[in-house]
Amino acid sequence: MRAADRIEQALENAISIAEGRGEGLGSEFGAPPLLVAAMRHAVFPGGHRIRPQLCLAVAQACGDADPVASNAAAVSIELLHCASLVHDDLPCFDNAATRRGQASVHAEFGEPLAVLTGDALIVLAFETLAVSSAPARRLLPMLATIARSVGSPNGIVAGQAWESEPAVPLADYQRAKTGALFVAATIAGAAAAGFKTEPWRALGATLGEAYQVADDLRDILCDADELGKPVGQDSARLRPNAALQLGLDGARCRLEGLVQAAVDSIPGCPGVVELREQIKAQTEQFFPKQLSRAAA
Amino acid sequence: MRAADRIEQALENAISIAEGRGEGLGSEFGAPPLLVAAMRHAVFPGGHRIRPQLCLAVAQACGDADPVASNAAAVSIELLHCASLVHDDLPCFDNAATRRGQASVHAEFGEPLAVLTGDALIVLAFETLAVSSAPARRLLPMLATIARSVGSPNGIVAGQAWESEPAVPLADYQRAKTGALFVAATIAGAAAAGFKTEPWRALGATLGEAYQVADDLRDILCDADELGKPVGQDSARLRPNAALQLGLDGARCRLEGLVQAAVDSIPGCPGVVELREQIKAQTEQFFPKQLSRAAA
Repeated sequence: MRAADRIEQALENAISIAEGRGEGLGSEFGAPPLLVAAMRHAVFPGGHRIRPQLCLAVAQACGDADPVASNAAAVSIELLHCASLVHDDLPCFDNAATRRGQASVHAEFGEPLAVLTGDALIVLAFETLAVSSAPARRLLPMLATIARSVGSPNGIVAGQAWESEPAVPLADYQRAKTGALFVAATIAGAAAAGFKTEPWRALGATLGEAYQVADDLRDILCDADELGKPVGQDSARLRPNAALQLGLDGARCRLEGLVQAAVDSIPGCPGVVELREQIKAQTEQFFPKQLSRAAA
Repeated sequence: MRAADRIEQALENAISIAEGRGEGLGSEFGAPPLLVAAMRHAVFPGGHRIRPQLCLAVAQACGDADPVASNAAAVSIELLHCASLVHDDLPCFDNAATRRGQASVHAEFGEPLAVLTGDALIVLAFETLAVSSAPARRLLPMLATIARSVGSPNGIVAGQAWESEPAVPLADYQRAKTGALFVAATIAGAAAAGFKTEPWRALGATLGEAYQVADDLRDILCDADELGKPVGQDSARLRPNAALQLGLDGARCRLEGLVQAAVDSIPGCPGVVELREQIKAQTEQFFPKQLSRAAA
């Protein structure tokens, strides 16, 4: 099965747990219909699924000895990413009315359900790992890695919280807010395949940084229709933005350098050649169209 | 060590993970100071710690073969309870300015940090289990049980979400919103000690129902100073309330019947006699003073 299909299927299985339709779960009663509708709205249709794609790509490069484990890791990471988008879009943060080209969760379902949808997706991310049939020796380290990439001090929740501090250490902010889940993707992918994990940290960290620069460029270059969410948010909110700091050409150079560094950082593994090509192809996805390397 | 001291110490250890001071965690950088201050504010000083007390009491009645596992379960459950209070107090839900006699998290730290504090506490609850040194054969079932008690369809997030539905099945609502974490406490307590878990479900479910009735009575009987949070919220929000439905005497009878049923449901275990006494003593804690059995 193609990685993209594996991801969508595994996400569907996860959401079915929250709907009380999960296999063998012995659900006692039904789920609140609006909550599960809002959870579906937050997860489907997805964006590029960059993080779970990365997780599965690393697992496959390492032989993917346990696809149940790599699927669970990929899904958990994507659910946590979706949860963070739902909460980031809330009125008290970005107050974004659109996301992925449709109404944001709070715009469609109201603020109470948006708060609860984010909460439920976080819980479901961990439940997906806990009920996976993958062996415990793989699941618990993956769980710890993924939890750290979302919590405090190193994860995306801490990253978002830096925006509420009077002084923001920029590198910490970006590593936590964007980098952490990319690191979780590469580390969990390797862990799922039974490989040593630390050599895979640099790939995730570097891709996370590249993604942040690309996102900064998109915030300036794209229009809202193309992006599916409001643009110009960084300058409006005085958030640091690489394209504002380095200029367009400077940011493009930085982005290309990071992608090359990411490719170069890939540790030895059975599928190293294919993974290099995949990383290059996947990073094309998050280059803003106006800056795609074909046009450069 | 007394159970109360074990719980506070274990909660302190958990918060130190979020602060980047956790042992052996190799934290790379510091945590956002306001986020961790808000997390502390949400967790300390606590209320009666009823759920972790129940979890440890069951584990001890079963021999408490693995105190590391029972501590992790108790802490995880209390962190999830605290997270639910932080989010329930948000302006889009109860808009409560006080909690446990002090400012609520959003009143003290603002709404963005309150959303993130709830998120971070949920993540920390699972991280605490994942990084515990208890054996995986105990941790993963505890993780699955605890995740179910918080998520959808059966957990407290789903319970809260029923308030956003046009029609609310009352029993589902109360079982999910209040009962689920009590069930998690008894089941995880037994699991941590290596005992069969299903016989312990009735104790948690019945105590959860008793607690809900007691909470309904407090909402009507107590003043805000005594309760440490706003009162009269149920009638103001048209939420179902046993004391409004059954009258004060009816609700008191129901509460006493539930406490007796809970005591009678305790399965055979080494410490059954002591546990019966503990359950009676603990339920005294959540009887409203005006209705304490001594005064009745």
